[in-house]
Amino acid sequence: MELRKYSEFYRKQLLEDTLPYWFPRSLDHEYGGYLLMRDRDGSLIDDDKAVWIQGRFIWLLSTLYNTLEKRDEWLEGARMGVDFLEKHGFDGDGRMFFHLTRDGRPIRKRRYFFSETFAVIGYAAYARASGNAGIGDKARDLFGKCIEYAEQPGLLAPKFTGERPAKGIGVPMILVNTAQQLRDTIGDPRCDTYIMKWIDEIERDFVKDDIRCVMEQVGPDGHIIDHIDGRTLLPGHAIEAAWFILNEARHQGNNQRLINLGTRILDYTWDRGWDQGYGGVYYFRDVYHKPVQEYYHDMKFWWPHNELIIAALLAYLLTGDGKYARMHKQVHDYAYTHFHDKTHGEWFGYLHRDGTPAQMAKGNLFKGPFHLPRQEWFCWWMIDWFAKNK
Amino acid sequence: MELRKYSEFYRKQLLEDTLPYWFPRSLDHEYGGYLLMRDRDGSLIDDDKAVWIQGRFIWLLSTLYNTLEKRDEWLEGARMGVDFLEKHGFDGDGRMFFHLTRDGRPIRKRRYFFSETFAVIGYAAYARASGNAGIGDKARDLFGKCIEYAEQPGLLAPKFTGERPAKGIGVPMILVNTAQQLRDTIGDPRCDTYIMKWIDEIERDFVKDDIRCVMEQVGPDGHIIDHIDGRTLLPGHAIEAAWFILNEARHQGNNQRLINLGTRILDYTWDRGWDQGYGGVYYFRDVYHKPVQEYYHDMKFWWPHNELIIAALLAYLLTGDGKYARMHKQVHDYAYTHFHDKTHGEWFGYLHRDGTPAQMAKGNLFKGPFHLPRQEWFCWWMIDWFAKNK
Repeated sequence: MELRKYSEFYRKQLLEDTLPYWFPRSLDHEYGGYLLMRDRDGSLIDDDKAVWIQGRFIWLLSTLYNTLEKRDEWLEGARMGVDFLEKHGFDGDGRMFFHLTRDGRPIRKRRYFFSETFAVIGYAAYARASGNAGIGDKARDLFGKCIEYAEQPGLLAPKFTGERPAKGIGVPMILVNTAQQLRDTIGDPRCDTYIMKWIDEIERDFVKDDIRCVMEQVGPDGHIIDHIDGRTLLPGHAIEAAWFILNEARHQGNNQRLINLGTRILDYTWDRGWDQGYGGVYYFRDVYHKPVQEYYHDMKFWWPHNELIIAALLAYLLTGDGKYARMHKQVHDYAYTHFHDKTHGEWFGYLHRDGTPAQMAKGNLFKGPFHLPRQEWFCWWMIDWFAKNK
Repeated sequence: MELRKYSEFYRKQLLEDTLPYWFPRSLDHEYGGYLLMRDRDGSLIDDDKAVWIQGRFIWLLSTLYNTLEKRDEWLEGARMGVDFLEKHGFDGDGRMFFHLTRDGRPIRKRRYFFSETFAVIGYAAYARASGNAGIGDKARDLFGKCIEYAEQPGLLAPKFTGERPAKGIGVPMILVNTAQQLRDTIGDPRCDTYIMKWIDEIERDFVKDDIRCVMEQVGPDGHIIDHIDGRTLLPGHAIEAAWFILNEARHQGNNQRLINLGTRILDYTWDRGWDQGYGGVYYFRDVYHKPVQEYYHDMKFWWPHNELIIAALLAYLLTGDGKYARMHKQVHDYAYTHFHDKTHGEWFGYLHRDGTPAQMAKGNLFKGPFHLPRQEWFCWWMIDWFAKNK
């Protein structure tokens, strides 16, 4: 594998294609924060602000400042997002909103705490970049709240009755990354213990070695819930879990147990999630190959491909196994051929099963400057790290 | 248009293809109610019970008994659904659940009252079929609750804050049909007034003649909300509204104002919703032709095609205008070519834009024995009615 070629490619894509699509035009100099819901050519389709993505863009700009180059405009851009969230992101009960108007009035609050996890990584990276200790304390406070929400699910209004209790891999998966980011930027004594607790939970309850599968949802004790919802797999989430775990293995000096766990998750999900017919990662699958509820199950979304590019590359760097180099090349070639917009930069978000774009938006309530630039940044950074630490 | 040929075709499809797929195998003799979540070949994929569809199947079996033939097994089948909903369908606050286990334990209650509207039409049709006056009273009580929920939106927990108030066409649209069904079966003195009130609301607030468009969502005073959600059109809902209004025109002795309104809605929605490339009705569109949030916007779902077959046929019967005969033939041919499963009967629910099936399930949380058999029943019944009443 020509690691140097990939490293250069990702850095160049990030700085000359992906980032220029978003920055500086998304900075809202009138109300603060970012205007991120954009059509193919960058024109604005909505001036509302999705709180997840406000936090994520803070994270991106701060992380570039921390790891790539100390550019003042990145730090200043990150500050604009932090100020906006500080002013408008939080409800009176301390929880965060999901969807705001341009001037920060709340449109929707949801029953999940993903707004909070993205604020933690944004605030922590910004605190590191700016030296603002107050924002660092807020990142740690918010991280504490995330731990509470995760450990006492009753704190947030439930969507379902208690008749068929279930839990999703999304919570421990995203918290592993939240804690890793917090640790890597400003540090927090809780991170190491919790990271291993959440990884243990993923392995114990969600990874099913007997059927070579990673569940999206299980009962509280890890049993498979044999109903449509319970059977539905989301390969993108499993792939994210795989690389967060592999990254933990790297952090812990090539911890073999974690390398083994991360590559098992990757192998199982590749076998079930890769479309052998058209290429690309399916959005949903059923554990027993039955029809899922979601009609768009065979579409190809951008973000699982970002996550798979990282996971395969990291698996290769940690194991040297050529099958991961081939996996990386396969998903890299598919993604940069089908998702990348050669005309206006950045990626389309949603392809039909056959690889044709279903629509052209680059940003909306769920898509923004995160999975793609994170992949390009992390792959560049990681190849560099391995080169230095071999 | 060979009306007699279509009438015979729909009756035959209903009785020899669609209904035998569901009946009698879906009757749950152990716990009552219906087992309706089924794969292509009829095998069960989930034994949970979606409350919407329990009510809808009661309506179908009772309506066939009332209008087609007095078959005891249909009446008995309807009774099994009514008993199940009476035992398990209602929460302590009088509202209905959305999703139950096979034995009736509640999994989920939602913030909408569509479970209630489908119970009204099921109960009313069953009360007519069985002569059970107690169930008729319950239908009328529930209808009263639906009116309250519609007129005092604050009664149900809101999904959004009050910052950008909005209302959907779904509520007045479905209530027009609910009231029509109640009136046609056991009668209720409130129906005529409310039907015209809701039709007036649709015309005043949702139909935009200047841009030839029917909105899915508007502000309380009918203004277009220029954000992604507010701009999103759902042609299937507008088409349903069109034929409920045309059916009201028929009921009122060819009311010309209502014929004009129904055909305008149909014309506008055809122009915006029909896929000129591949045929079929798009699922979502943007009023200003921008990208919508939903990635599956260009898929073809079964139910808008059922509604369009009815709407075009009814428009032709009421106006004699050949363009509606051509519209009817076009959607009829598309739908019975692409959705109908020639091997196992019934229709697939979800096609890719190009008309290939995206998955094979015949029943799930949202699809069951309703839109297709209703279309086949209503088109047969309506052609017959016009033949007798010319």
